[in-house]
Amino acid sequence: MLERMFDPDAVAVIGASRKEGKVGRAVLENLISGGFENIVPINPNDGEILGFQAYKSILDVPEEMNVDLAVIVIPAKFVPEAIDQCGRAGISNIVVISAGFKEAGVEGARLERECLELCEKYDIRMVGPNCLGIIDTDSGLDATFAANKAHKGNIAMMSQSGAICTVALDWADRTNVGFSKFVSLGNKADLDENDFLEFFETDDSTAVISAYLEGVKSGPDFIEIARRVSRSKPVVIVKSGRTSVGSRAVSSHTGTLAGSDAAYNAAFRQSGVIRADSLIEMLDLSRAFSAYPLPEGRNIAIVTNAGGLGILTADACSSAGLNIASFEEDTINELRETLPPAANIYDPVDVLGDASADVYAHALETVLADGNVDGIILLVSPQAMTDITEIAEKVVDTIKGSEKPILCNLAGGTRVAEGEVILQKNGIPNYPSLERAVASMDALCTYYSIKKRKYVSPPSINADGDTAGKIIRDAVSNKKRILGLESMDILSSYGVNVVDSRIVKSLPEAVEASEEIGYPVVMKIVSPDISHKTDVGGIRLNLQHADDIERAYNSMMSDVHRYMPEARISGVQLQKMVSGGKEVIIGMNRDPQFGPLLMFGLGGTYVEFLKDVSFAVAPISKEEAKHMVSSIKSYPLIAGVRGEAPSDINSIIDTLMRISQLVTDFPEILEFEINPLMVMQDGQGCVAMDVRFTIDVK
Amino acid sequence: MLERMFDPDAVAVIGASRKEGKVGRAVLENLISGGFENIVPINPNDGEILGFQAYKSILDVPEEMNVDLAVIVIPAKFVPEAIDQCGRAGISNIVVISAGFKEAGVEGARLERECLELCEKYDIRMVGPNCLGIIDTDSGLDATFAANKAHKGNIAMMSQSGAICTVALDWADRTNVGFSKFVSLGNKADLDENDFLEFFETDDSTAVISAYLEGVKSGPDFIEIARRVSRSKPVVIVKSGRTSVGSRAVSSHTGTLAGSDAAYNAAFRQSGVIRADSLIEMLDLSRAFSAYPLPEGRNIAIVTNAGGLGILTADACSSAGLNIASFEEDTINELRETLPPAANIYDPVDVLGDASADVYAHALETVLADGNVDGIILLVSPQAMTDITEIAEKVVDTIKGSEKPILCNLAGGTRVAEGEVILQKNGIPNYPSLERAVASMDALCTYYSIKKRKYVSPPSINADGDTAGKIIRDAVSNKKRILGLESMDILSSYGVNVVDSRIVKSLPEAVEASEEIGYPVVMKIVSPDISHKTDVGGIRLNLQHADDIERAYNSMMSDVHRYMPEARISGVQLQKMVSGGKEVIIGMNRDPQFGPLLMFGLGGTYVEFLKDVSFAVAPISKEEAKHMVSSIKSYPLIAGVRGEAPSDINSIIDTLMRISQLVTDFPEILEFEINPLMVMQDGQGCVAMDVRFTIDVK
Repeated sequence: MLERMFDPDAVAVIGASRKEGKVGRAVLENLISGGFENIVPINPNDGEILGFQAYKSILDVPEEMNVDLAVIVIPAKFVPEAIDQCGRAGISNIVVISAGFKEAGVEGARLERECLELCEKYDIRMVGPNCLGIIDTDSGLDATFAANKAHKGNIAMMSQSGAICTVALDWADRTNVGFSKFVSLGNKADLDENDFLEFFETDDSTAVISAYLEGVKSGPDFIEIARRVSRSKPVVIVKSGRTSVGSRAVSSHTGTLAGSDAAYNAAFRQSGVIRADSLIEMLDLSRAFSAYPLPEGRNIAIVTNAGGLGILTADACSSAGLNIASFEEDTINELRETLPPAANIYDPVDVLGDASADVYAHALETVLADGNVDGIILLVSPQAMTDITEIAEKVVDTIKGSEKPILCNLAGGTRVAEGEVILQKNGIPNYPSLERAVASMDALCTYYSIKKRKYVSPPSINADGDTAGKIIRDAVSNKKRILGLESMDILSSYGVNVVDSRIVKSLPEAVEASEEIGYPVVMKIVSPDISHKTDVGGIRLNLQHADDIERAYNSMMSDVHRYMPEARISGVQLQKMVSGGKEVIIGMNRDPQFGPLLMFGLGGTYVEFLKDVSFAVAPISKEEAKHMVSSIKSYPLIAGVRGEAPSDINSIIDTLMRISQLVTDFPEILEFEINPLMVMQDGQGCVAMDVRFTIDVK
Repeated sequence: MLERMFDPDAVAVIGASRKEGKVGRAVLENLISGGFENIVPINPNDGEILGFQAYKSILDVPEEMNVDLAVIVIPAKFVPEAIDQCGRAGISNIVVISAGFKEAGVEGARLERECLELCEKYDIRMVGPNCLGIIDTDSGLDATFAANKAHKGNIAMMSQSGAICTVALDWADRTNVGFSKFVSLGNKADLDENDFLEFFETDDSTAVISAYLEGVKSGPDFIEIARRVSRSKPVVIVKSGRTSVGSRAVSSHTGTLAGSDAAYNAAFRQSGVIRADSLIEMLDLSRAFSAYPLPEGRNIAIVTNAGGLGILTADACSSAGLNIASFEEDTINELRETLPPAANIYDPVDVLGDASADVYAHALETVLADGNVDGIILLVSPQAMTDITEIAEKVVDTIKGSEKPILCNLAGGTRVAEGEVILQKNGIPNYPSLERAVASMDALCTYYSIKKRKYVSPPSINADGDTAGKIIRDAVSNKKRILGLESMDILSSYGVNVVDSRIVKSLPEAVEASEEIGYPVVMKIVSPDISHKTDVGGIRLNLQHADDIERAYNSMMSDVHRYMPEARISGVQLQKMVSGGKEVIIGMNRDPQFGPLLMFGLGGTYVEFLKDVSFAVAPISKEEAKHMVSSIKSYPLIAGVRGEAPSDINSIIDTLMRISQLVTDFPEILEFEINPLMVMQDGQGCVAMDVRFTIDVK
């Protein structure tokens, strides 16, 4: 259906204006200058506007004009009526440019809801409100009030900020970068990034999808859609607000560590989206994707006339994980024969400061033909003898039709300006700094592996959902926010191995429980008033027989009473003593946008001080669970180091997937943490020692 | 003396040429176009060159011409003779532009040494060889063959790459950035970065010092000089080769972790040098320093006409550790009164997309007057109604004479180009991306605190250098590369507390030694063939009395024999058992450029897998020792967390300074590591449990 949005037979401009400087006139002018012919201005004063017959209302427009897109540029309070009229006139696509909606306060938000209801009633799809408009360079539709035109190209861009649309269009105009489609998302009352991702996926004119987003409207859908779309086209997104930390009260490590930016990072990674760190990087990357096929490896050749720039570029490549290529023998021989003796014929190739355009072009050509080279960074410094213009022209000839990406950095200012124009005119990406060229090359290489990635859906877990469900429903009806020992039963019902654990109220019960559990056991005080059990003598380890239990029980009671005479004692907990494992933590925090955000890390200081943790949005595939475990820095400690036996990593992965299923099945689980999960040697499994569930009881 | 280098009475150009395209002609032309009048071309064919009387040899030039700088542009093999003639002619400053020296191989290196010897003989100071030349915009001297002119300004720049000089000059031409002095360092045979740092320090026309370096010639001198210079002027350096790891064989953790880039980072930090991550950043930062006084705090106001850019900038500020300012009430009131209701009157201030130049300028002025604001980032997006040119003009009026830095980002391309030119013409730094503006602001704020920093020299340590010296000299003469138990005596002699430890060869001796040490003790096997003692049963802990010693000794001997029948047993080591402390590591590795590079980190996995370590070049001040300890991520683990008592951090600092003194006193110590240093609770000191010295025996 969105096809007609971008390629309508006729467009009505509701609020078309005769007055210069009015948005309603700018839209009309843009439509006209874009070459669009079937334009229907709607204005209380009919007659002609800019050569087109105007109508008082969309309802007055003859049906045979076949208006299938209306652009609305009238004050907010009149917009609902206009939408109603569009609906009655059978128009199914609208772009609401007008501001004064949700972004403007309570009354605006009400108006926006009203608009949305009308859209739903009439089955209308709406872009906006509060946006710059939309552009399709194929159909020639420019339904924006932007001062810039979009060049024709293969980048489909969307932006949640109209101002950033203008920045991108203006940047693209100067750098000669073209767009297939351009969408200012505005308030996203109806159509949002997910709709356009899906639309761009099958749009033949689009090869690259890029976006500026301040948030996504539906996280889980976004992940599913982006995961699919990113397999056919690169999706490059800059997401702002990365440092603002959500203000929700959180009680576990998971919560304090997982700002919502961690969720975005995880979601983008899981769905194959390339996250740009800045607006400029988003534009840089889009441009590189737009210009070249993907490199099939990470071996990069550098060609330069300045050794210093070569070193800096090699540094940047190495930091980005790109390899400096090892040339084939033929390449080295050819360079040795054609370059002066002082030149460097290995990567980075230094053609020397006085290199002519021919020498440059030949070196480039030679390196380009090398089978070990996947991509090239071309650097030119404006030395005294350097004819930048001629070099740029010859380079263009050499690069034309290249199957390998060649990203350039004409380094300097005044003297390289003309060369920049020549490269731009020919669609060759030239960057103002070598670091930006390298970052773009890295993105090309990274996307090549994203594209090859296979996604296998999470396997179904054999779980006893009834048991878990009953415990959780009981907690909700009893307003019990924090679960007690029944937490362990929830884990068990999902197949997670838990430590045998009982709470008792007397010494005889303690002995009985210990015999059932089997020695050795651990005894812990149970009190709503005591949070740091160790500090009050509330923990006894390694109890071996009934006598130990008796001694431990009595001394614990007297110790606790001495340290905290006021504390209410509910009893003691007996637990099987587990030793010899490694402590890890699995947590979950519910992100407002993406839902259950899982966290994994090594227990203790690794999580607390080094924040060495990984995140993923549930549900996770087995690959994603593996990635969570292996991507923490302290991974070697569980993978086995210095002859130490490896921990049972498969059991961690299995547990992660069970937890993923559990928190997906029960949205009532607000927060969750197993701390610690004791992981034994490879093949010997893991066991949850303690767990904390926070339930949504309101 | 370098004053005459930059401001000579007359300049001779040895190798001045009549032929277009020759370097010897380009130098002459640059001197002339710079307005320099007393030029003396030296050429085998005398007569006139470009209007100046030429001489066959520098020796032919009349003394009254007062030539006090010679620029040499003849083939390398003739340069020594020319220098000899300069010496005989009494010229004390030369710039050798000619290439073909050390960079060209063995014969070139020989020629370079010859030149240097002649310079020393005649007391001549030399820039180069193999350089672009030097510029002084005050005196009007342009003794380079660059195609660009330098604008007048207050940045003194030096570069180890001539090509990068041309990039910087060309960049500066386009952005209207000016230099006081400009030096192409070339091969640095004589004059190097240290000489120019000292010269720029007292040069009145210079406010900012910047450099591109591939290395420093004398590390210790560099630290001393830069530490002093950076207190009066900002020193911004981009150092290339940061990812190339030295290939020296290394045997300790210190070695594997400390590439020479770690040494540069430490040296730059210790000496107050601001390290730029890229050439462009070096230029960006220099420009910001060049334009404004320093901000006195880190509270930044953002003024924008695009909410999205405001959020991205706030993100970037927050990542850089810059604060978003809290405005004074007057500011908020004034903004509320003068901006439209939908505007954001808190930081980031959003003047909205249709803001006029007057509105922009007034908002800027208001924020500028706020006492809580230390610096401003000004953003402009090219929206439909935005008159960039007028905004740029009004902004210039508002900014003029500002005591606070205002860094701009006109975001876009074509439509902002004219605004960029206006800002540039008026010397207002405008950056192509908001991130670069923020990075520059961060540097300004950071330098403000560097400037305020006080440096106190390391106190002298009361050490018994004779004992240490004797052990080390003995090792050298006995070719003993790795020291044994005598290592502990070296530490002791420098006042480092070491564990009581003896090596014995029999059971009776073991018992005797243990009684002397005092129980409990630890027993370890001593064998040149056994590196992992635990694996062969070669360690026994917590031995409490003579019977324990006997049992341990016998069982150890039989265990070791069973596991490794071939191992040569030298005896056993008895050591006082120390428990209850935290393990840290202090190491040292000798960096080829900077000498002793100290390393500090928490023991075990923290060092090995998380590489959570800090570095500093010895000798270190007390502040630097403190910084080493407190800058590791795992610092909370020794500072005391969750009610745990803090470790004795003062004793670590004290030990670090003693080690600093030791490795400074004895350059024979190649590598060094205390692993572990056991740190007890605060006030209870620390004790070195094991130490490894590698001595330079060749």
